[in-house]
Amino acid sequence: MKNQHFFVIFIIASFYFSLSYSQVEKIEPPFWWSNMHHQELQLMCYGKDISKYDVEIDGVTITETTKTENPNYIFITINTKDITSSNIVIDFKNQGKVVTSREYEFKDRKANSKYRKGFDSSDVIYLLMPDRFSDGNSKKHSRSDIAEKEDRTNPAGRHGGDIQGIINHLDYIKDLGATALWSTPLLEDNEPEYSYHTYAQSDLYNIDPRYGSNEEYKKLAQELHKLDMKLIMDYITNHWGSKHWMIKDLPTKDWIHQWPEGFKRSNYRMTTQFDNHASQIDAKGCMNGWFDVSMPDINQNNPLVLQYIIQNAIWWIEYADLDGLRVDTYSYNDKEAIAQWTKAIMEEYPNFNIVGEVWMHDQAQIAYWQKDSKVGAIGNFNSHLPSVMDFTLYNTVTTMFNENDDVWDKGMIRAYNNFANDFLYPDINNILIFAGNHDTNRINEVYQSNIDKYKMIMTLILTTRGIPQIYYGDEIGMLGNRDKSGDGDIRRDFPGGWEEDEQNAFLPSSVKKGRTNSQEAFHTFTKKVLNWRKQSQAIHRGKLLQYIPFHNVYVYFRYTEEKSVMVIINNNKNDQTIDVSRFTEGVKTFTKGLDILTGTTIDTTKDFQVSSQTSMILELQ
Amino acid sequence: MKNQHFFVIFIIASFYFSLSYSQVEKIEPPFWWSNMHHQELQLMCYGKDISKYDVEIDGVTITETTKTENPNYIFITINTKDITSSNIVIDFKNQGKVVTSREYEFKDRKANSKYRKGFDSSDVIYLLMPDRFSDGNSKKHSRSDIAEKEDRTNPAGRHGGDIQGIINHLDYIKDLGATALWSTPLLEDNEPEYSYHTYAQSDLYNIDPRYGSNEEYKKLAQELHKLDMKLIMDYITNHWGSKHWMIKDLPTKDWIHQWPEGFKRSNYRMTTQFDNHASQIDAKGCMNGWFDVSMPDINQNNPLVLQYIIQNAIWWIEYADLDGLRVDTYSYNDKEAIAQWTKAIMEEYPNFNIVGEVWMHDQAQIAYWQKDSKVGAIGNFNSHLPSVMDFTLYNTVTTMFNENDDVWDKGMIRAYNNFANDFLYPDINNILIFAGNHDTNRINEVYQSNIDKYKMIMTLILTTRGIPQIYYGDEIGMLGNRDKSGDGDIRRDFPGGWEEDEQNAFLPSSVKKGRTNSQEAFHTFTKKVLNWRKQSQAIHRGKLLQYIPFHNVYVYFRYTEEKSVMVIINNNKNDQTIDVSRFTEGVKTFTKGLDILTGTTIDTTKDFQVSSQTSMILELQ
Repeated sequence: MKNQHFFVIFIIASFYFSLSYSQVEKIEPPFWWSNMHHQELQLMCYGKDISKYDVEIDGVTITETTKTENPNYIFITINTKDITSSNIVIDFKNQGKVVTSREYEFKDRKANSKYRKGFDSSDVIYLLMPDRFSDGNSKKHSRSDIAEKEDRTNPAGRHGGDIQGIINHLDYIKDLGATALWSTPLLEDNEPEYSYHTYAQSDLYNIDPRYGSNEEYKKLAQELHKLDMKLIMDYITNHWGSKHWMIKDLPTKDWIHQWPEGFKRSNYRMTTQFDNHASQIDAKGCMNGWFDVSMPDINQNNPLVLQYIIQNAIWWIEYADLDGLRVDTYSYNDKEAIAQWTKAIMEEYPNFNIVGEVWMHDQAQIAYWQKDSKVGAIGNFNSHLPSVMDFTLYNTVTTMFNENDDVWDKGMIRAYNNFANDFLYPDINNILIFAGNHDTNRINEVYQSNIDKYKMIMTLILTTRGIPQIYYGDEIGMLGNRDKSGDGDIRRDFPGGWEEDEQNAFLPSSVKKGRTNSQEAFHTFTKKVLNWRKQSQAIHRGKLLQYIPFHNVYVYFRYTEEKSVMVIINNNKNDQTIDVSRFTEGVKTFTKGLDILTGTTIDTTKDFQVSSQTSMILELQ
Repeated sequence: MKNQHFFVIFIIASFYFSLSYSQVEKIEPPFWWSNMHHQELQLMCYGKDISKYDVEIDGVTITETTKTENPNYIFITINTKDITSSNIVIDFKNQGKVVTSREYEFKDRKANSKYRKGFDSSDVIYLLMPDRFSDGNSKKHSRSDIAEKEDRTNPAGRHGGDIQGIINHLDYIKDLGATALWSTPLLEDNEPEYSYHTYAQSDLYNIDPRYGSNEEYKKLAQELHKLDMKLIMDYITNHWGSKHWMIKDLPTKDWIHQWPEGFKRSNYRMTTQFDNHASQIDAKGCMNGWFDVSMPDINQNNPLVLQYIIQNAIWWIEYADLDGLRVDTYSYNDKEAIAQWTKAIMEEYPNFNIVGEVWMHDQAQIAYWQKDSKVGAIGNFNSHLPSVMDFTLYNTVTTMFNENDDVWDKGMIRAYNNFANDFLYPDINNILIFAGNHDTNRINEVYQSNIDKYKMIMTLILTTRGIPQIYYGDEIGMLGNRDKSGDGDIRRDFPGGWEEDEQNAFLPSSVKKGRTNSQEAFHTFTKKVLNWRKQSQAIHRGKLLQYIPFHNVYVYFRYTEEKSVMVIINNNKNDQTIDVSRFTEGVKTFTKGLDILTGTTIDTTKDFQVSSQTSMILELQ
């Protein structure tokens, strides 16, 4: 009787398990491609008590199966080398018997996908925040479980911009002269507040429904490519959102950095990444502390985590047909792990480009993070990161145009000094340069809507070495003071992005409700230089030759063997004379310079005047 | 008749030449040593029309004879390998006949001269200006041709300090606790004005008679060595004085950098030394421009010049028995040439030390100049210079103690950030650290005689990594404002250095006319830390472990395997509690800390208090 009773229980239990397992809730990545460079693929299978089963795939080698302390996960690694068929079948077995099966799709890759060319110094990147740019689909996609609802009256709330809104205005961005688009993140962020910035993501394989769908994101790339423009995805390796489904059911305790005290904020001292004297507690406090309460810090040292985020990034590149990544808070990651992540992606796409946010204030410290850096090599480090951001130039640009006197270490000498340290960078053309972004005071706020200063700034940013990035709305003189009024103020809605807007700054001043005269002046200048830049080989790939600024006038040249552009920025409060004899190394045998800003031609064989607070961009002839 | 007449003229001419040549005015170096590492020796022979003669030396190989466009010079290079006798004879010949001869002496070297040990991080250097320190010989040595006379009433004039004055006060310096002496230059400077700083030298082989004699300089070294102290010579490679006898009769036009416009001041933009974008005109303008009107810029690219200054430096090291060089304006020299100069000296004395003045404001830019720098290697440069000066720390030290609040990037975080970049330096122990020198505002002027701040500053300078240098008079709180009152103000006479002085700050406050109570307080603190430092292995050669300053309190450790010193600098305007649990990596298993400043013992197993604006130096036990 006893034995019989036991047998009945066994049957019931077995039946119960197979029933409860009728759903494999998720397999990630949701599909993959054949003929990828990396042949190993890690499949994360998720479902209640799934780890009680064994996994087999007919005709496919499973090289590793990992079960963690959480029974709801199985990670299997397969070798995809011989997978050419479009689907494979994953069997979940209990005691040799298939309990359930899932088809898993392998797609064909786009022709030449591997060799896609990333953004480069021939591009100008337009950075926008999708929630604040344009609402293109008033019938919102959403889901009942999405927490934060639209509230345009709240500066920190959801305003309703979406992917369709961006698509609707690609003609505007194209016409302005930008050639690449960097949108801040679009993946699902289900935080109850502040979700509009979308840096606390809750699902890495799905576009936030408030922005649209995966298909719409793919369409955005397609539409950009039709216009010969590029799409850069904003990727976050350092942290996920607190509402991420995996954070709520952690595969392993060490999937994230956990602290005895619960939440522990990062100390943000990124210098601990290379400081030989740094204490361990401080180094860990920076790297493993959380960026914010809503952002659990991902442990990329866990190989399962690392592989998950490598594959996720590759999945988006391949799926959406991306032209680049911008990586958030790059220098807060475990540096060896993020280097592996970066290397893996660049091996998959050797001509791709990735720019990391390394927000430091010293060129050596920034250069440390660029691929093959000799500064990094001092600490035996190679990030494999192709591109970094020139935050020291940003600091310079936001300071020097208020210094209009002739002072030893102020004014334009700051720009000169910034570029003097370029020798520290292994690849000086692959550096992002900018006068502001979604985390800074707006440049026209810094200079109080002074268009003369804006023109000097944009002259510099758009003609020096590197990849210029402009921030949506700067081209119409938008204002925003983060220090005074918070993040929302520098992320105001683009006027005309919403049907109900009283003004539409996407339209010229000649159109009713179009740009104001002031906005038009900013726009006209920006458009002129951007569109000229598109065809200037000397600006795209020329060398830089710079001269010590005297009297607060900065003169430099961009030149190839055939072409030369002479740039003059007079930040002096008085008109200045250009003593041509000093610049013969740059002027060479050219005798004329066409000022692309005014259309006038300058005789470069004799001295000439440059008005106060004015720049010139001379195509030498 | 005609022939006979010609013959007579020939005889007369010949007679005239030999007569006119009865004097070989100079041979430099004036003597040399046998068994030097470098076997080649360049002898510069000077005399009117000397180049008309041939030079021969019996038994010695002349490997090269160079005659220049100035007939008053012959440069001969001899191989000294086989010279063991004390004298050789240099014959000056005309048509095979000896016209005149000079004996040239080879001395024996001091035992182990080659392996002399230079100053290092176990030392503390006392920097003084000899004209302003003490007048030890009221019966002045001078010469009628020396232009500038003594005038103590003129802040920019000669005040009469001399070598004997230094010798007279070595006991004071020893008692204070310094272990090495750097005197600003002592070689002859015959400028009619401002000669007291002596950076415009008119004779590189002779001590200025107003300071004393070569023999007295040698005696200074001997007296220092008796006290187990070291002597560092201030050497100038970049420029000579306008009254240098060779400048007045240039061997070659390119012995100095000459400019079409006559005097051309350097643009002082040292970044042109490594800026890949720098224009040639700017790079030359920095390196070849003159430092000042009285300082013709030496062309070290001329091999005769380079060899002359290499040998001159070696001559002084060997002659005066030096323990180190400090090289003025190091980064204004032609960098490849100064690297050769430095390398030659370090090959001659492999354990020697040379510190170069590289007055830049960025660690990468300073690190560029240190021997085997990986930053320098980016530009394929190796200076071979063992030691550089930590000017960024100087900038930090003179700023942060006025920032007493708890601010993200101010106060003690500046020190922390400075050391975070130490990874850029190839040899972090061999860096000169200081709170001021003869070219800066005095540190007690910067902090308006605030002794609490002085104590925090000196705690940092005397316990962090590197070689501390203190500036004469700072130890008694001397003031001086260069910006307001000029160089003379930061180079005031040390009180008591002159017989007629009303006060004698060399003497303690307990003695009549001795130090004031205020001076005594500065002195007592300095003496205590300096003398303690002498025996602290952890400070001399320990590693540095630093913690992020919280609440403007900077905590760091210097440690070897056996010893640990914990330093706490509370720059907060309020008392602060030290949370010991944060510092376990540094405190290790030590349970007590003897505060060498107060003599009290702290229990390091529990939290303790540090008063506002106070530092602690805890020897852990």
